[in-house]
Amino acid sequence: MSTAFNCLFFYFPELTKAGVCMKALEDRIRAEGKILPGPVLKVSSFLNHQMDADFMMELGAELARRYAGAGVTKILTIESSGIALAIACGAALHVPVLFAKKHRTSNVSGDLYQTIVHSYTHGTDYTVVVEREYLDASDRVLIVDDFLANGKAIEGLLDIIRQAGAETAGAGIAIEKGFQEGGAKLRESGLRVESLAIVERMNAEGIEFRAES
Amino acid sequence: MSTAFNCLFFYFPELTKAGVCMKALEDRIRAEGKILPGPVLKVSSFLNHQMDADFMMELGAELARRYAGAGVTKILTIESSGIALAIACGAALHVPVLFAKKHRTSNVSGDLYQTIVHSYTHGTDYTVVVEREYLDASDRVLIVDDFLANGKAIEGLLDIIRQAGAETAGAGIAIEKGFQEGGAKLRESGLRVESLAIVERMNAEGIEFRAES
Repeated sequence: MSTAFNCLFFYFPELTKAGVCMKALEDRIRAEGKILPGPVLKVSSFLNHQMDADFMMELGAELARRYAGAGVTKILTIESSGIALAIACGAALHVPVLFAKKHRTSNVSGDLYQTIVHSYTHGTDYTVVVEREYLDASDRVLIVDDFLANGKAIEGLLDIIRQAGAETAGAGIAIEKGFQEGGAKLRESGLRVESLAIVERMNAEGIEFRAES
Repeated sequence: MSTAFNCLFFYFPELTKAGVCMKALEDRIRAEGKILPGPVLKVSSFLNHQMDADFMMELGAELARRYAGAGVTKILTIESSGIALAIACGAALHVPVLFAKKHRTSNVSGDLYQTIVHSYTHGTDYTVVVEREYLDASDRVLIVDDFLANGKAIEGLLDIIRQAGAETAGAGIAIEKGFQEGGAKLRESGLRVESLAIVERMNAEGIEFRAES
């Protein structure tokens, strides 16, 4: 879907039920994003600490619009900051949302799919688990997350989907760091990746987005 | 709001936009809830591991209906399993949602409100943090969480609201374990607590709900 077509919705608000122009996300990132060492793009004012609930529903609806007709039966995300976008997308697609838990808690019982994810942010490995009864070979899964950088979290979720024998419809991301290798690697592997905003470069001068985002 | 009045919506589906009959939640708990030692009420099939997105939006809308006119400016929850209900409620009230993070990550910078919460489930204390810039004395806060049992998580969030000098509108809960002391203690302290379902007793024979839930 070209930016030009998406942006029709910006000029015809009555169409925004079907899809919000994601220029709105780029504008929001430009207005509120802070660049920290890493580089980390901090968007805690609206996306992953404080969350603009109305805007989150629009982001979820836009991902749902892009994956309409893709046969999605379930959304899979990873705690914590992917949950809000995943539930917004699930509500728009009318499918259940499953979140991988970052470690085994006493509330997780029975047979589990599990995999290890490396976190560059925290410099550690962690285990994520999904109960087997909620994912099986009959599912066609859309992975949703707030960020895509090195792609390690998504690779972990793909491993869980593989263990379940399920199909993957693709990944739906709010913000992709296009200057890190995750998105390119995942697309090269054949995965459909839809990112609502792709940051091409960011530095003290500002943030530049990939045109096709 | 009496159960009888709530249940009008059950018979007049056209009214469900304003409020879903929470008999639906009790029915769902009866049908899918599993009682584990603790006792733990496991509702991972629709509430806090796999999540029924459409139903979550209904639960959030019902909490929003109960707090309509209460002057809520912000919703505060705690990661991870409160986030979905909080975003559903925030979307219905059109207010931002803030989630307390369970430990300091590199993405949380600057001045923080922090407090310590004791988890009976895990037998440990943990620190939760909220960035100061997202909560201040101008806010009137609705606390949202999926479960209320001993009330320790909500006490922690109340402490953060106190540190911010903000007001508390109340708490909105999906499932309260009425046989644990949290709900009674919080209500005695003067807090408004709205629980969509209150489990009075649960054992091998079944689950009994408090009539006024």
